Amino acid sequence: MTEAFDAVDIIIAKRDKRELTTAEIEWLIDAFTRGFVVDEQMSAFAMAVLLNGMTRSEIRDMTLAMIASGERMSFEGLGKVTTDKHSTGGVGDKITLPLAPLVASFGVAVPQLSGRGLGHTGGTLDKLESIPGWRADVSPSDMRRQLADIGAVICAAGAGLAPADKKLYALRDTTGTVEAIPLIASSIMSKKIAEGTAALVLDVKFGEGAFMKDLDRARELARTMVDLGNDAGVATTALLTDMSVPLGLTIGNALEVRESVEVLAGGGPADVVELTVALAREMLASAGLPDADPAAALADGRAMDVWRRMIAAQGGDPEAELPVAAHQHTVTAESDGILTRQQALPFGIAAWRLGAGRARQGDAVSAGAGVELHAKPGDAVTAGQPLFTLHADDESRIARALDAVSGAWEIGSVAPSPTPLIAETIR
Amino acid sequence: MTEAFDAVDIIIAKRDKRELTTAEIEWLIDAFTRGFVVDEQMSAFAMAVLLNGMTRSEIRDMTLAMIASGERMSFEGLGKVTTDKHSTGGVGDKITLPLAPLVASFGVAVPQLSGRGLGHTGGTLDKLESIPGWRADVSPSDMRRQLADIGAVICAAGAGLAPADKKLYALRDTTGTVEAIPLIASSIMSKKIAEGTAALVLDVKFGEGAFMKDLDRARELARTMVDLGNDAGVATTALLTDMSVPLGLTIGNALEVRESVEVLAGGGPADVVELTVALAREMLASAGLPDADPAAALADGRAMDVWRRMIAAQGGDPEAELPVAAHQHTVTAESDGILTRQQALPFGIAAWRLGAGRARQGDAVSAGAGVELHAKPGDAVTAGQPLFTLHADDESRIARALDAVSGAWEIGSVAPSPTPLIAETIR
Repeated sequence: MTEAFDAVDIIIAKRDKRELTTAEIEWLIDAFTRGFVVDEQMSAFAMAVLLNGMTRSEIRDMTLAMIASGERMSFEGLGKVTTDKHSTGGVGDKITLPLAPLVASFGVAVPQLSGRGLGHTGGTLDKLESIPGWRADVSPSDMRRQLADIGAVICAAGAGLAPADKKLYALRDTTGTVEAIPLIASSIMSKKIAEGTAALVLDVKFGEGAFMKDLDRARELARTMVDLGNDAGVATTALLTDMSVPLGLTIGNALEVRESVEVLAGGGPADVVELTVALAREMLASAGLPDADPAAALADGRAMDVWRRMIAAQGGDPEAELPVAAHQHTVTAESDGILTRQQALPFGIAAWRLGAGRARQGDAVSAGAGVELHAKPGDAVTAGQPLFTLHADDESRIARALDAVSGAWEIGSVAPSPTPLIAETIR
Repeated sequence: MTEAFDAVDIIIAKRDKRELTTAEIEWLIDAFTRGFVVDEQMSAFAMAVLLNGMTRSEIRDMTLAMIASGERMSFEGLGKVTTDKHSTGGVGDKITLPLAPLVASFGVAVPQLSGRGLGHTGGTLDKLESIPGWRADVSPSDMRRQLADIGAVICAAGAGLAPADKKLYALRDTTGTVEAIPLIASSIMSKKIAEGTAALVLDVKFGEGAFMKDLDRARELARTMVDLGNDAGVATTALLTDMSVPLGLTIGNALEVRESVEVLAGGGPADVVELTVALAREMLASAGLPDADPAAALADGRAMDVWRRMIAAQGGDPEAELPVAAHQHTVTAESDGILTRQQALPFGIAAWRLGAGRARQGDAVSAGAGVELHAKPGDAVTAGQPLFTLHADDESRIARALDAVSGAWEIGSVAPSPTPLIAETIR
């Protein structure tokens, strides 16, 4: 910090569409982290960024400044290539659970720092915490040891990574500035780059159940993050994947762990397997193994072996019975036909209302709560056949979950034309 | 307040260019005044307004909501028509001082609530406080009595008028959101409408020494305020006036009072007289006296009589000697020629640095400090002739004032083509 700037001048520059210099952005983020630039200034800046955008070099500077606001991890000297995956979040998105051990089964290190859920999208840590004994907190030295021994670790990010991003993210949530692509991209990438991974695969979701509702905006976000990662020396690619229908047949913490274990055992729903294998292939290619065959490692139990060791290393019992919610309510088909609609967002909200998610940070979640789907769009159904089952610890939650999914599914006579799960790959 | 809204929804609506409803704006301003909508939310909203604008009905709703946040004065039953003037601020702008008594001399009431200076533009109250004994604080009942007896009062606005505006204005100053026309217009007009005047004349300044640098923006602001006033039942007109050259021959508190008294005595600089008479004519027309002759009331001493009574009613001695600064420094012409340039902004900054203005709210100002001009653009000058004199209580301030005006005047050979002081009238 050799120069001093004025926050108002920097806000006005962005407001008036002048490109900010590296020194201005470094000063702004540092001063915000230290509290010299106050919240009302940073929120006005965030709104100006949302409406006026940022250039590629401004986004890079912003990301690097947020990384510089905190600690930076390094996995050099580990003797393994590191690769990581980030999803922008969806309904029933449990892919990290089978994916990390699957990729690690090829001798690649997967340091997967994950978060908890907020709103209708679930959090990977919440899901794993439904396994009796499993702990999300792993010290940096234990993390390194686990990566060397087992290859995969899924754990909570320490508070020291990119504190400027944490502070800015909380502010954006209350000021209508969440949806700015430069801010989303720099938020995600600052944490991933600070985490020290050598390669990164992004699962950028689009559709009604995703943060980005349309493909164009998702593509713009993916392009921005891929450029940002590669500019910062992290080999980054992205898949654009459809999130208009829930992923797999389960939404909820223990329910999704169960489904993930099915995938690791060589089974599981076709869409979850397809996305797991596609992301594994990208991660392995980015780690220098373009010819690896992840489907084989699911079929022959290698991935399951790493899963068991990964869970056990963090105190979990991979053989333990998973929690089951006290109450179930099954909805059946009123008529014969074909399931033509199953909307991700209402089913995600239903799982949230059943207790699988939290309304505010720090709330507890229910391990057993959630939604189990018995049919997917395109499936033929007969009258009386179960369509889905709601799970809750507290029976009174069922009614509000039913409200959420009212009109979110439909039985018709013409099968919907299938849409590809993976729309595009961005390199 | 019958409905509750969410601040984030309202910010997002403005961000996404949706027109806000009356109920949304009422809720937002009320909740901000009460502290339920926090500063970082309001600053993000202000930035969205600056970049996306507001419709005429949104600006009206915003203004009415700010009026509703506080007290509202009324001069009904006074037996006189009330009319008021507001200037957007300029260098050497002492017009309120001769104008209020001049208009009142026609039997019209002029309740002029004024402010103090900040930065390079002076404040009317600061100027009048250089008169020994004069007090800016007048109770509402004394104000009413003075309007009935004398017709003119120039005093400080009570804290109860439009408190939402005060809170928002302070926030805009530190968040790069001062320059939004909807916010400027609603800020000015909420105070003027709450003040209870029946008619209003706006002096909207443009040019280098004004808040609005160019005529187009000044015209847009004037149009917005004229519409707003008329929509709210206040007969409002505006003059667009040039502020590229200081107004009159003095900048500073006692110096400007002295010049104002010269105008009231039938003399004074031509530009100050021209603008005083033009604004008086507009105010008198808006009060139902389109044929009144303000120039005659300056010439025959009627306006001066009201001035003396107005000053005395607020404790001031209209015959007292005005304070004179301890130090003077005169700059002379280096050569024969014509004064071709005299820039308002640098001369305003010089007066500020000499002690006439304040750097932050609450600072004291010097009564005697300022700049006295001995020539105006177009005047022929000879080498050695005084061009201007700097006045300061503290001699050390002279050097920084000279720095401010360096390059701000020029002696050439060709007279500049005269530009009209009053560019347009907006009704």
